[in-house]
Amino acid sequence: MYSKEIQAILDKEKIRPGDIIKITTPEQTFEGILIPRPEKSSTTIILKQDSGYNLGINWQKTEKIEKISQGKELEIFPSIDIKPRKDLPEVSLIATGGTISSRISYETGGVKWLMEPGQLLSIAPELEKIINLKKIEKPFLIASENMSATHWQKLAESAKNLLNSGSAGVIITHGTDTLHYTAAALSFMLKNLSKPVVLTYSQKSTDRPSTDTVLNLTCAAYAAGHSDIAEVMLCGHAESQDTYCLINRGTKVRKMHTSVRHTFRPINDLPLAKVYPSGKIDIINENHKKRTDKKVEADTKFEEKTALIKYYPGANPDIINYFVKKGYKGIVIEATGLGHMATDESKYNWLPTLKDAIASGLTICAAAQTIYGRLNPIVYGEGRKLHDIGVIHLEDMLPETAYVKLGWILGHTKDQKRAKQMMLTNYAGELTKKTDTRTFLY
Amino acid sequence: MYSKEIQAILDKEKIRPGDIIKITTPEQTFEGILIPRPEKSSTTIILKQDSGYNLGINWQKTEKIEKISQGKELEIFPSIDIKPRKDLPEVSLIATGGTISSRISYETGGVKWLMEPGQLLSIAPELEKIINLKKIEKPFLIASENMSATHWQKLAESAKNLLNSGSAGVIITHGTDTLHYTAAALSFMLKNLSKPVVLTYSQKSTDRPSTDTVLNLTCAAYAAGHSDIAEVMLCGHAESQDTYCLINRGTKVRKMHTSVRHTFRPINDLPLAKVYPSGKIDIINENHKKRTDKKVEADTKFEEKTALIKYYPGANPDIINYFVKKGYKGIVIEATGLGHMATDESKYNWLPTLKDAIASGLTICAAAQTIYGRLNPIVYGEGRKLHDIGVIHLEDMLPETAYVKLGWILGHTKDQKRAKQMMLTNYAGELTKKTDTRTFLY
Repeated sequence: MYSKEIQAILDKEKIRPGDIIKITTPEQTFEGILIPRPEKSSTTIILKQDSGYNLGINWQKTEKIEKISQGKELEIFPSIDIKPRKDLPEVSLIATGGTISSRISYETGGVKWLMEPGQLLSIAPELEKIINLKKIEKPFLIASENMSATHWQKLAESAKNLLNSGSAGVIITHGTDTLHYTAAALSFMLKNLSKPVVLTYSQKSTDRPSTDTVLNLTCAAYAAGHSDIAEVMLCGHAESQDTYCLINRGTKVRKMHTSVRHTFRPINDLPLAKVYPSGKIDIINENHKKRTDKKVEADTKFEEKTALIKYYPGANPDIINYFVKKGYKGIVIEATGLGHMATDESKYNWLPTLKDAIASGLTICAAAQTIYGRLNPIVYGEGRKLHDIGVIHLEDMLPETAYVKLGWILGHTKDQKRAKQMMLTNYAGELTKKTDTRTFLY
Repeated sequence: MYSKEIQAILDKEKIRPGDIIKITTPEQTFEGILIPRPEKSSTTIILKQDSGYNLGINWQKTEKIEKISQGKELEIFPSIDIKPRKDLPEVSLIATGGTISSRISYETGGVKWLMEPGQLLSIAPELEKIINLKKIEKPFLIASENMSATHWQKLAESAKNLLNSGSAGVIITHGTDTLHYTAAALSFMLKNLSKPVVLTYSQKSTDRPSTDTVLNLTCAAYAAGHSDIAEVMLCGHAESQDTYCLINRGTKVRKMHTSVRHTFRPINDLPLAKVYPSGKIDIINENHKKRTDKKVEADTKFEEKTALIKYYPGANPDIINYFVKKGYKGIVIEATGLGHMATDESKYNWLPTLKDAIASGLTICAAAQTIYGRLNPIVYGEGRKLHDIGVIHLEDMLPETAYVKLGWILGHTKDQKRAKQMMLTNYAGELTKKTDTRTFLY
């Protein structure tokens, strides 16, 4: 709620939250959508700018506040009728929250969720010509930073059920923050996957003219309904412009930028395909699983006592003892270079602590904190020492994928030998034999 | 030591470690340098291949072992005479170990270190025409994964002394694993820096035909002796080929690939300059500090009770309590997206634990685990909650740089307010106001 002084000016100008207004200060003028304040008597006026970011202006510095246009944003996700298109592939959608399926209510400042297929079609009417969108499931609606393994398990169950009851593919809309962790989790949890499961997102909210929602949903619909790729994939902008999308393998993709639309990049593997808004799908990586008639299974066991930590100069190895005491079963360490951490005769020597942890039953893995590239612990003596005490160097597996995989593996076995063997077995494209040099900074 | 059986064959063929040999198996033939084994009675023959990696071949699978040529590698770093070149800028070098200043002794399997300026010139004779190389200091010789703040402090002292006693610039050779952490540390520790401090490295060891040492050293010499950039910089291959080098700002650079030569990439900032082996220096970022006559100071206080951790789905906030109990003064958390972690009403909610940690005196910061981009905690409600309890969102600062900076700041003050203010003050280019869009995946 704005302060009395501000409210008086707004009332005089007949301005309500949601309206586009112009504020003049001695230095500058600002345009944007007036956002309501949940706090009491706020003296800062908040404008949502076209960049998507909010701007706070101290009302005492304003010279003039004018209304530019009435807010149209107050109607949240109008729904339109869906005409069943039996000639198009039947695709289902699972909405989980995130920027892509939310819209800020300018009346309350709260988030409204996209709930019905008809609402989705009002955002991207193109979808009606691409797929027969039958159902939107909402197992939960949360920001993706609040997700954990329980949510991955629910998603795997939903996707399995939809695929086994007639859907030709599934689209999952999801917040961007932890989308690549979810993509990796579903890659391991969905067994005998025989149809496309396509995760997509939005970096710029759906109510903004610059939103990336429409292109991402359009390409995801082509990938889910029309592609032959029976894998868990992440589909989104290839470039900053609305040109085309990349489909990346769920285990070989990472959010690499806080805010740009083409934030999800392939890591240590080429994208599976390019998808154009015209529907054209250019396969890049021929080495992918194809559609079959197999029944999909959800194999979702996950050991929550799994950790991901990062090594850095001066890192005290005692942190490992903490995890041992707390009953953890496995740890992925983001190691430096080819898979290293301090192993010399200093107080930071990680060798004795790691040796004890492994002896007490933990599975300890190393992944590359450089993100790109492949570990090779036997090039230098230091890495060899870690290898010799039983640290499992995970080749070219992403640290985030490695964490998810380790939790999934430890959900199935606590036997160290078996866990090691499974960590070094390729289940869903997470390990490659040779890395194409074009993949660096793709 | 090889097993009796292998040694008999080697003796018969007059093969000694260091010789180039050819091994024929039923499937393939392999060529490489025979590496001695430190273990007793090894039955695996180790070849160092031209790729630089070692290959193990079970001797029982060998059909033939032949000598191709006598090893020349046994002479470790021959030294050549230096003729003082008073007409060239006087530059000093600090060797710290790492691939660039080491060479494997094929007799012992151990590492031999580059010790004298004359040895460096035998590797890169070009240097003699670029700089007057006066002195090589060796404060310590270790692999860079074994470094910590004590080493950074010694380096800062060495660099300061050399610069204040006549050197026009300093080159530091260093292992790649933690080179970017050292670059950041020196950026903060060297105050009133009035001359170039250039860190360089090698990804492919100096005794290999494919080594990157020569180009990196050549460009580093031009940067240290001839450039006007009075900053801490990291100089190395711009591309996979031996074309030219990039000079990146010490606080805005990161090792991004485990093995390629152009592994160090600029993050959230353009490189300072391109340096060609001809000596041409193309300035890209005009906004850099220029040479002056100021006396350099080393301000090296560092709080070792500083941690860097990574948030991930399912991460238990209790890890924060561990650091509090252990007396830590500050933590940098690699947060998701625009600066988030779980803040909902689940068992993984980080808010209460972070609030308590901040109340008990810790300085808690967030940096972007996406690596590229800028945090903005006020776009979404979730980030705002973290901001409101006092988590310091570090804009576009790299997590690694943030860890180093936090340790350095907490070495100077334990006052939370002052520490926050210092963390958000730009000292060495670690914070920029606006990020050039060309920097993403540069």
